[in-house]
Amino acid sequence: MSADPFQRTRAMFELPGGVVYLDGNSLGAMPKSARERVRRELNESWGRELIRAWNTAGWIDLPAKVGDRIGALIGAPKGSVVASDSTSINLFKALAAALELAAPRKVVLSDTGNFPTDLYVAEGVCRLLGQGHTLKLVDPEAVEGALDEGVAVIMLTEVDYRSGRLHDMRLLTEKAKALGALVIWDLAHSAGALPVDLAGCGADFAVGCGYKYLNGGPGAPAFIYVRPDLQDCVAPALSGWMGHAAPFAFELGYRPAPSIDRLRAGTPPVLSLAALDAALDVFEGVNMLALRDRSIALCEDFIHRIEAECPELKLASPRDPKARGSQVSFRFAEGYAAMQALIARGVIGDFRAPDVMRFGFAPLYVGFADVELAARTLIEIVRRRLWDRPEHHARNKVT
Amino acid sequence: MSADPFQRTRAMFELPGGVVYLDGNSLGAMPKSARERVRRELNESWGRELIRAWNTAGWIDLPAKVGDRIGALIGAPKGSVVASDSTSINLFKALAAALELAAPRKVVLSDTGNFPTDLYVAEGVCRLLGQGHTLKLVDPEAVEGALDEGVAVIMLTEVDYRSGRLHDMRLLTEKAKALGALVIWDLAHSAGALPVDLAGCGADFAVGCGYKYLNGGPGAPAFIYVRPDLQDCVAPALSGWMGHAAPFAFELGYRPAPSIDRLRAGTPPVLSLAALDAALDVFEGVNMLALRDRSIALCEDFIHRIEAECPELKLASPRDPKARGSQVSFRFAEGYAAMQALIARGVIGDFRAPDVMRFGFAPLYVGFADVELAARTLIEIVRRRLWDRPEHHARNKVT
Repeated sequence: MSADPFQRTRAMFELPGGVVYLDGNSLGAMPKSARERVRRELNESWGRELIRAWNTAGWIDLPAKVGDRIGALIGAPKGSVVASDSTSINLFKALAAALELAAPRKVVLSDTGNFPTDLYVAEGVCRLLGQGHTLKLVDPEAVEGALDEGVAVIMLTEVDYRSGRLHDMRLLTEKAKALGALVIWDLAHSAGALPVDLAGCGADFAVGCGYKYLNGGPGAPAFIYVRPDLQDCVAPALSGWMGHAAPFAFELGYRPAPSIDRLRAGTPPVLSLAALDAALDVFEGVNMLALRDRSIALCEDFIHRIEAECPELKLASPRDPKARGSQVSFRFAEGYAAMQALIARGVIGDFRAPDVMRFGFAPLYVGFADVELAARTLIEIVRRRLWDRPEHHARNKVT
Repeated sequence: MSADPFQRTRAMFELPGGVVYLDGNSLGAMPKSARERVRRELNESWGRELIRAWNTAGWIDLPAKVGDRIGALIGAPKGSVVASDSTSINLFKALAAALELAAPRKVVLSDTGNFPTDLYVAEGVCRLLGQGHTLKLVDPEAVEGALDEGVAVIMLTEVDYRSGRLHDMRLLTEKAKALGALVIWDLAHSAGALPVDLAGCGADFAVGCGYKYLNGGPGAPAFIYVRPDLQDCVAPALSGWMGHAAPFAFELGYRPAPSIDRLRAGTPPVLSLAALDAALDVFEGVNMLALRDRSIALCEDFIHRIEAECPELKLASPRDPKARGSQVSFRFAEGYAAMQALIARGVIGDFRAPDVMRFGFAPLYVGFADVELAARTLIEIVRRRLWDRPEHHARNKVT
């Protein structure tokens, strides 16, 4: 165990005592480096350098730097990812660009397992364009069969936020592209959780989240990837000054930057972005294949322990670990109450209506002892129906 | 002087020794409350509460809370402002909404003194809509005369970022509305710098910046205002989950929230937003009319001192203080080098090409002794042409 590289990464996090944290798929735990970095940006950069810190503290370079660091985790070459805005905003940028490139096709294909904000954003783009674009939703299993030459863009989230079900990114990307569609992947639950090979599978666009498995802090900036040879063809819909070829020339007309930078819009939230930058330090030296192996082992261990003792809980995630992200979900009719009881006892997972108990396993800081304790606690709660006892009720409401 | 309320506010900032900071119009100085708040969000909220902090630390309510606090400074009623995204993104939201409401009119009227990102965003909206919308740019002085019944939306920044020239918000708003146009104000250099009366003048939309006179920190979230009786008519173009009527119901279809909340999009950058929230503490108990009086007195004092001793510097700001924001600009052929020499001596202003030296006077923390020292230093530099001496050259490049 002493050679375990994940003992090293676990020690890089600030983990509160008495807590087993299985909700890193909603908000990653805090790396100590992120806390120290933000303190430094406050005390030394903003507080002492003031406006000069844009240069002296490197703030101006953060979106590109953080983009490249995330790119290294998702199979994206340097200069193809930029950190910016939220996932929703980045998806708007990607989809607006893709639909322009895909003309005259007008169908956006997605699935009912996608995270709702992606579908809302797609609705908004279609409506705004006012050219008859439509969002076609099918079941996740039906995406492949629904691909045809009418599809302009497929827009999918690789890992289902409720079940952890994994789309076959390579297969769907290749099939869509063979049919002439453009492909957008949302990597919200993928980046930092499993190996991704954007360039290798030929994806056109990708977006993702900084605050889940990348541990960038609450509402950390998101990211956007554009295939390198496509970048100069993208006419940014959100054409802000930070995406201009010469932001500080203050020209009256917009000229997009000759790179991924054109996907930037306004001034980035530096404190949040610096936290994300520092959080990525934890990934230095981490082999993503080893991380994936560990993630699978943690999830398998949890599934086996729960299934052995709690037949009431039905696995809602794919049984095949290769078809699953870094989370495990169980359906349980009394899941809401059981999850509140679990949280009250220090095991933090979350709940999605109507009956899904979700457990995220962030391999950088969750270990096998956590799995054992979480499983033991959940088993006790379910066996003894502890949620029926007022003293075990939740102290906190978790959304 | 002991009764001076601005001695109290000045003491609430962390100001580095040996520096006179006259660039709060680019990045406000750091309130101590902001630093302490971010530390708390790191140590106590993210670090200890983890995902629970969305409820226990009130993160979920921050966009509305901060919006209301900013609203109180700009004449906006409760529930009409939300803190969110960047100024560029918020302007996109406002303009897309306004153009839909203003149909079939298709002209966006703005001026050449507007901050470029506003113009870039307007270009992008017009292009994206693909319905023949155009951006018409006139000189700032010609806006009133260019208003006619063909104008769909006027989109102006109240304070010119180079000269500090102030538009007559009430007059232009009333005239535009009488002609049936919608009105969007960018308050980037107004909010926190001078009294604004959005509701009183009948503005339809406004956006603004959190990191200038509101002192929210580098890249702090921006804000957007929508006239209360217009909110339910706005169909958000950037339809993200945080603007949904029930974000945590995870419905497949978008239903906008029944309030200003519909102008939100993705998950907000909490660390940056919390800094802005705490920064607004400084405004508690500050009378905006008294702040405006002080701002004018500071600017007048600086102008008189410089004009008395440096005839080479030509005032680029309006001479009438009522026509000026909280900044003073001078044109000077050697302004770039002179500004570098000034910064090297601890007086931080900034420079805008080709020859504008800008000085922002943030009344919350800039005092008359600062004005005297800044003027004396600048006068010495100009009289002795100190930028010709290498030892006085700038140590830092300031954008």
